[in-house]
Amino acid sequence: MRHLSETDKNYLLHSIREIEDFPKPGIKFKDITTLLGDAKAFTMLMEHLVARYKDMDIDYVAGIESRGFIFGAALASQLKTCFVPIRKPGKLPYTTISEKYSLEYGVDAVSIHIDAFSTAGKSKPNVLLIDDLIATGGTATAAVNLINKAGAHCIEACFILNLTFLQGDLDIKKTTPVYSVLEVL
Amino acid sequence: MRHLSETDKNYLLHSIREIEDFPKPGIKFKDITTLLGDAKAFTMLMEHLVARYKDMDIDYVAGIESRGFIFGAALASQLKTCFVPIRKPGKLPYTTISEKYSLEYGVDAVSIHIDAFSTAGKSKPNVLLIDDLIATGGTATAAVNLINKAGAHCIEACFILNLTFLQGDLDIKKTTPVYSVLEVL
Repeated sequence: MRHLSETDKNYLLHSIREIEDFPKPGIKFKDITTLLGDAKAFTMLMEHLVARYKDMDIDYVAGIESRGFIFGAALASQLKTCFVPIRKPGKLPYTTISEKYSLEYGVDAVSIHIDAFSTAGKSKPNVLLIDDLIATGGTATAAVNLINKAGAHCIEACFILNLTFLQGDLDIKKTTPVYSVLEVL
Repeated sequence: MRHLSETDKNYLLHSIREIEDFPKPGIKFKDITTLLGDAKAFTMLMEHLVARYKDMDIDYVAGIESRGFIFGAALASQLKTCFVPIRKPGKLPYTTISEKYSLEYGVDAVSIHIDAFSTAGKSKPNVLLIDDLIATGGTATAAVNLINKAGAHCIEACFILNLTFLQGDLDIKKTTPVYSVLEVL
């Protein structure tokens, strides 16, 4: 366990609900709460991720606020590794480092505790980045850069759903492998 | 596995970092990222929670945004149950119901998808509520009420850390069992 067949992938894809015009007009939002609300789908997905990552010598699973916390913490707990939250600026209580990224209008940033990767007792611990979805990829690219800036090695960026037509993973792929469980072409 | 001895509880308590004056002066913030960054502590905690809840016929684990997502999703995935996110208003994409609660100045609210508990095929599915910390208890009390309002049965509210001296669990205990892994008296 657990390779995902095409039937499995279709089951998972159909467990994700589409919401028109959220959070703003013209956007078809991918609602993963319906996947989480289907125990068969959630379990199948997690078994697949555990099988993929259990032998990759991962020290930390890092998840991006806040849906990335759901899949990242679930995976970390099953792999018995550490979990590291990557958050919006101002949310983490201790000293942080940040990485900015561009939005359509303006900039945003992601933050991490400066000592987030200090507990593994390695000079370059292996970190798996996980988020629920990659669209244009600004947040995820910044998160990969942030992990490397914090002194760790981002060994892979994993997304449950990749809106492949937006090519949001192109910049990440220059430095880091990308794995997408499901794709919307 | 896994009863927590006093030694285990002390280990977990000391894995939580205290940050003075965050998010505002006078508050001693409990930083659970250091627990998550200690694989031994995180694994010990999750094994304890799995042992406690595996035979309680839980249909859904509900976690409160956003640190409750971390422990809640980890537990749900290990129990192979559904996970339901309870969020601030405006974050969930589908139709929601909400429950308000009072703050020191003003009101806030928590929201849940109106169909969050519709997938178990039961008229009153069993829901375990989980959050990282209970202080004055406003959010948690509202979350318990919200779960019951949404047609489910909140069988227990579980907190990793209870600031017992604030008595934030008194209102919840009128209707619902409360379990605190760790307590600050």
